[in-house]
Amino acid sequence: MKITDGKVFVCSPGRNFVTLKLYTDEGIYGLGDATLNGREMAVVAYLEEHVIPCLIGRDPFQIEDIWQYLYKGAYWRRGPVTMSAIAAVDMALWDIKGKALNTPVYNLLGGPSRYGVMVYGHASGGDIEEVVDEVGRYLEMGYKAVRAQCGIPGLPTTYGVGRGKLFYEPAEKGLPPEHIWSTEKYLNFIPKLFQRLRDVYGDDVHLLHDVHHRLTPIEAARLGKELEPYHLFWLEDPVPAELQESFRWIRQHTTTPLAVGEVFNSIYDAHLLITEQLIDYLRTSVLRGGGITHMRKVAALAELYHVRTGFHGATDLSPITMAAALHFDLWVPNFGIQEYMRHTPETDEVFPHAYYFQDGYLHPGDAPGLGVDFNEELAARYPYERAYLPVNRKEDGTMFNW
Amino acid sequence: MKITDGKVFVCSPGRNFVTLKLYTDEGIYGLGDATLNGREMAVVAYLEEHVIPCLIGRDPFQIEDIWQYLYKGAYWRRGPVTMSAIAAVDMALWDIKGKALNTPVYNLLGGPSRYGVMVYGHASGGDIEEVVDEVGRYLEMGYKAVRAQCGIPGLPTTYGVGRGKLFYEPAEKGLPPEHIWSTEKYLNFIPKLFQRLRDVYGDDVHLLHDVHHRLTPIEAARLGKELEPYHLFWLEDPVPAELQESFRWIRQHTTTPLAVGEVFNSIYDAHLLITEQLIDYLRTSVLRGGGITHMRKVAALAELYHVRTGFHGATDLSPITMAAALHFDLWVPNFGIQEYMRHTPETDEVFPHAYYFQDGYLHPGDAPGLGVDFNEELAARYPYERAYLPVNRKEDGTMFNW
Amino acid sequence: MKITDGKVFVCSPGRNFVTLKLYTDEGIYGLGDATLNGREMAVVAYLEEHVIPCLIGRDPFQIEDIWQYLYKGAYWRRGPVTMSAIAAVDMALWDIKGKALNTPVYNLLGGPSRYGVMVYGHASGGDIEEVVDEVGRYLEMGYKAVRAQCGIPGLPTTYGVGRGKLFYEPAEKGLPPEHIWSTEKYLNFIPKLFQRLRDVYGDDVHLLHDVHHRLTPIEAARLGKELEPYHLFWLEDPVPAELQESFRWIRQHTTTPLAVGEVFNSIYDAHLLITEQLIDYLRTSVLRGGGITHMRKVAALAELYHVRTGFHGATDLSPITMAAALHFDLWVPNFGIQEYMRHTPETDEVFPHAYYFQDGYLHPGDAPGLGVDFNEELAARYPYERAYLPVNRKEDGTMFNW
Amino acid sequence: MKITDGKVFVCSPGRNFVTLKLYTDEGIYGLGDATLNGREMAVVAYLEEHVIPCLIGRDPFQIEDIWQYLYKGAYWRRGPVTMSAIAAVDMALWDIKGKALNTPVYNLLGGPSRYGVMVYGHASGGDIEEVVDEVGRYLEMGYKAVRAQCGIPGLPTTYGVGRGKLFYEPAEKGLPPEHIWSTEKYLNFIPKLFQRLRDVYGDDVHLLHDVHHRLTPIEAARLGKELEPYHLFWLEDPVPAELQESFRWIRQHTTTPLAVGEVFNSIYDAHLLITEQLIDYLRTSVLRGGGITHMRKVAALAELYHVRTGFHGATDLSPITMAAALHFDLWVPNFGIQEYMRHTPETDEVFPHAYYFQDGYLHPGDAPGLGVDFNEELAARYPYERAYLPVNRKEDGTMFNW
Repeated sequence: MKITDGKVFVCSPGRNFVTLKLYTDEGIYGLGDATLNGREMAVVAYLEEHVIPCLIGRDPFQIEDIWQYLYKGAYWRRGPVTMSAIAAVDMALWDIKGKALNTPVYNLLGGPSRYGVMVYGHASGGDIEEVVDEVGRYLEMGYKAVRAQCGIPGLPTTYGVGRGKLFYEPAEKGLPPEHIWSTEKYLNFIPKLFQRLRDVYGDDVHLLHDVHHRLTPIEAARLGKELEPYHLFWLEDPVPAELQESFRWIRQHTTTPLAVGEVFNSIYDAHLLITEQLIDYLRTSVLRGGGITHMRKVAALAELYHVRTGFHGATDLSPITMAAALHFDLWVPNFGIQEYMRHTPETDEVFPHAYYFQDGYLHPGDAPGLGVDFNEELAARYPYERAYLPVNRKEDGTMFNW
Repeated sequence: MKITDGKVFVCSPGRNFVTLKLYTDEGIYGLGDATLNGREMAVVAYLEEHVIPCLIGRDPFQIEDIWQYLYKGAYWRRGPVTMSAIAAVDMALWDIKGKALNTPVYNLLGGPSRYGVMVYGHASGGDIEEVVDEVGRYLEMGYKAVRAQCGIPGLPTTYGVGRGKLFYEPAEKGLPPEHIWSTEKYLNFIPKLFQRLRDVYGDDVHLLHDVHHRLTPIEAARLGKELEPYHLFWLEDPVPAELQESFRWIRQHTTTPLAVGEVFNSIYDAHLLITEQLIDYLRTSVLRGGGITHMRKVAALAELYHVRTGFHGATDLSPITMAAALHFDLWVPNFGIQEYMRHTPETDEVFPHAYYFQDGYLHPGDAPGLGVDFNEELAARYPYERAYLPVNRKEDGTMFNW
Repeated sequence: MKITDGKVFVCSPGRNFVTLKLYTDEGIYGLGDATLNGREMAVVAYLEEHVIPCLIGRDPFQIEDIWQYLYKGAYWRRGPVTMSAIAAVDMALWDIKGKALNTPVYNLLGGPSRYGVMVYGHASGGDIEEVVDEVGRYLEMGYKAVRAQCGIPGLPTTYGVGRGKLFYEPAEKGLPPEHIWSTEKYLNFIPKLFQRLRDVYGDDVHLLHDVHHRLTPIEAARLGKELEPYHLFWLEDPVPAELQESFRWIRQHTTTPLAVGEVFNSIYDAHLLITEQLIDYLRTSVLRGGGITHMRKVAALAELYHVRTGFHGATDLSPITMAAALHFDLWVPNFGIQEYMRHTPETDEVFPHAYYFQDGYLHPGDAPGLGVDFNEELAARYPYERAYLPVNRKEDGTMFNW
Repeated sequence: MKITDGKVFVCSPGRNFVTLKLYTDEGIYGLGDATLNGREMAVVAYLEEHVIPCLIGRDPFQIEDIWQYLYKGAYWRRGPVTMSAIAAVDMALWDIKGKALNTPVYNLLGGPSRYGVMVYGHASGGDIEEVVDEVGRYLEMGYKAVRAQCGIPGLPTTYGVGRGKLFYEPAEKGLPPEHIWSTEKYLNFIPKLFQRLRDVYGDDVHLLHDVHHRLTPIEAARLGKELEPYHLFWLEDPVPAELQESFRWIRQHTTTPLAVGEVFNSIYDAHLLITEQLIDYLRTSVLRGGGITHMRKVAALAELYHVRTGFHGATDLSPITMAAALHFDLWVPNFGIQEYMRHTPETDEVFPHAYYFQDGYLHPGDAPGLGVDFNEELAARYPYERAYLPVNRKEDGTMFNW
């Protein structure tokens, strides 16, 4: 089998998605997600100009060789643009191999290790009682795990608290909106939220919280310690994680489980966090982490050190990444949880998929390959529009982490 | 698909081999090697009494789940008997999956990453000139790499120098023979061997040497340093490796590349050696290391830390393990070299196989699954005979490492 | 004196036991326990086919030489099957030496260091009040120390809570039963159990708890911290312990004493745990840990680092191992405690023994050798039946640690 | 002052260059280099679609705020595409500030610390004598330092040995050419090259060598050791450097000075190398390393730990980056050396510049800003053509590092 061509599509059925389609001489095609939220067109150019021409004529079954070719051959390695482009190719190749061998991708990885994939949803509200209501709504839908984010008194904007509920969308059209941040207001408030949630819903539901990279290590250590009575499933992204050593002091002070890594793009972003057992869940998605081929290696490292997967699964990833993640999740021995932020109906229509939600679990379905398709005609009706995640400033105007 | 039965065969076409055959309700069967040199019947009992009954009715595509079931479910984990039994099941399951999907196992792992698998042969002789001749014989056969072992003046027996040349067999019928060892005589002699080999054959041929676990770290450090002018491809098993920290002082003193691990049986035997970059090549075979499923994870760890594979491939492993190794080798990105000690023609006849040697390289062939079969009738003509590797004593009678 | 023969017996007077009997030319015989729960027949084959033939003709007084011969001569070292076989031989040799010198084994080790061996019993119940009653029953019997395990609300099965009380038996006939596990339900419940036990029985009784390898390090750290007010004697097997580094983070967060190691089989499984002082009690039994000869060295290392013994003593070990442990315990300077799960009367009849229980202490008795015998005729009435410990799955079906 | 617009130009006067031009409401414009060799169009898209729209209206004097905005606001941080785009903006802002204040950029950094910037040139040849001649040619031109690369006997292609001499160009039009690599042939040969060069030119000239990421740590350690008699100024890029820990073992074995980092793009790629003092020279260019703003911080860290700068300066960077580097070099206290591979006359004509070469030194000149301009009309005559660096395979076909 030979790769004969590749095309890149950008559509916006509610949110921008970049989709790679690789064609073969046997009529089988593979799909890969190449969406990089707010930097979409850089990945498009990377693929169209610099990657696809190098793929034509190659054997799509040589997934590892192609991965190494794109990783080592680029000379300039790593980073979100590069690794997202490689991931898109990798997903498409696994999709092709599954279709060619007429088996779902989870069977190529090692077969199913569980009945379904436990997911968590996003409950957000302007104040505590709104969050209480939202958490309840997810529990009614059957979710076993819910991430809770709340507006902070005295701050006009808060991460994760946006327009809309089930289908809220953090990215905005046009230029990036600017949010305002106060670490002090946040730290003083958050424990109250989880005290209330435990009072209302008891100890059995899994509660998660995302700090979204906004604390220093010692601030995160304080928060982790103060949240211990509420037994969080995890505390996510407590600090910006370029400096992996930062997690040593958090870990030193608290037994609250830690999750990090949706912004990581290679094993070198996480290897110290894992080998020193500084974290409990790794968030790097199949898309951001260079595809199934690379994430399989990262997961093996994590398994050795008691770290479980907890893949990013917000709507900045298209249903193709969600499908790839679910095949991975159904197999990977050290599975933890999967984020599941529902796509809009428009998105689901553009990307018809075999995966489905039931009783708090997702299942990838049993279609060959990844089990997701791409409706090009429909997609064409939703053209790309420039949209960005917010940026964040402290109250004195200092640029901060969003 | 369901597993319907399993059978274990022991035959001795030149050497004892334990073979597992797993049957399915779709007529496909899978083969696994379960040979544990000198402890064969323990693995036979482990499989027949304790493993096969638990496999019947399971889906052979759930390779990871079955691996975890056998590893975690045993309660008493690890060790050569347990992990060889698990490996045999794992090989058989990959063989079944490849046959069911009609593709060679290397395609299930990630596809080919190279044209062929560089191997090394065993050149041994009673004295230096005999070794020189033997090395030459391998070079004439097209080998790019040769392991050289030599009789030590003053010692009646030496590791690797035995009866016969191409098909010499270290294990002996009956009870274990006792060899005699002197570290001092060995250390004083070995550098001369490699000086002579480089004088005769120049710098281009890869020369390897196996210490076979007989030195202390500081003795190994001395040897590594004294061999530096001869640029060995590797120095193997310099010390008994239960204590991984032992390699720190060897590494500290010499840049001679180090290989170790044919006796390892899990990632926990090697993780410090790898993460501290104390070795260059990992020798753990697919059979001893719990099968493809586990070794895939070990190889991923090794890749991160610049460690390459150099799988054990002596004739204590049947052609089934050799086939599994070659599929693995053809794929694994961080491949180094593969040991290749030729089986006797009798063995090759009992285990007809698709893999072949050409110009110093082995190739697994392109048959579905592992590409190796088992001739039960022929095997029955070579019944098991008790046979053991030698044991070793120092000149004063102290039990030592063989 | 020469070893003239060896025989292996498998009987099931309530539970399967593998017994090694070594005969000498002076009429003295020695007994060793070779029971490996759920993998019995692998050890039987290991001994019968591969070990006993090598022992015949050897001097049974050369215990160290024979130990090294079996350990180093096997080439493939360590693991539960190998080390249990070696341990059986080692026990039998100490038994022979004691009988030949007409003295209890404790005198060969260094003589008695204490009046008796403090033991702990197993109190288990479906709910807290049942456990309270069971603990009371042990205290009435004179026990100074009790391990408490309790059914977890919402889980149909719990480790340690089974059929029967004093003689409950975790292994089941036939294939392994599958249990269900939820870390969250467990963690939320356990502190309440110990709060109640301290409320009822005060601070003086030693309370122990066994996590049975089911937590990650950070989860274990949380549990250890939350149990601190109840001053456990120890928290056992908090995490699967192949990765010794796992205990660093537990140790960092809690002063609850830690015990581990019933699944260990050599000093290399524990050396980092000991030299970094990550644990307080080492659980490796004389049987699993390669016999008295090896465990004497492990205990010496432990003494250096303030670690005490707390040998495994459940009914998967026969009275022969219990006797060997008690001789060891009576001598070893850094003794901590001894687990004591009573064998059924049928077992005690098959293995008549000199050791006895009094006022919370066991004493090995003063008979020569180990002071335990084996009634072959009676044993023959209880033939081996395949039986397994349970396996464990998480609620989503993922294979987990039992 | 406000930024009013930005434009991106791609031209190919000998090699592809991406140029950013930022315009202000005061008529001053700034130039930045955004060239990412072989991935040019990804940076173009990154800038045009995602960065320039966010810059319009901002005050170009707020260099730090804009840098933080682009780094933190992107959410997906680091990587060669992102950081090259940020660097281009940063260079243009320093250019604007220098022009607005009518002073060369070196004065904004701290003023000149030396008379000129010592550079090294590239001497390459197909065999040793050709390299000898080329080194001589550089010495005649006044160079104090020369990098020597040589064709390897038995290999058809070698890094750094290409078409042409002074203006050779590694990137090729069309798809990436594939080179062949043999570590063994390379390692056996290189010491002879430097022995000969020292024999001919004595000890005073600075000799450098670039391994170009092709060894493992222990191989690099061997090479470093064997080169010690020839006192290299530095040994460059001995291993692929994503895993910074890799340099520990090289450092352990050799005192040959080490340089690395032309592929780095942030301080997090180098912080361990620097704080553990594993290297001597940091190669990260102003372009690849996020601009003057970020590299100023990296240089400060390096100064603390005795590490000096040795900026990448091959022709994949346009004269704009060269100018920025020279202003930086003239100021930075811990300056080491500057690579200087001459641009073609066509390139110099498109980018007229104030910097000049004299007696082995470059000087940035004293024009305001960076002192380099961009001839748009002339550039338009050299349209972009797809061109790539080579990729590299081992002799068995395995993808390798180029």
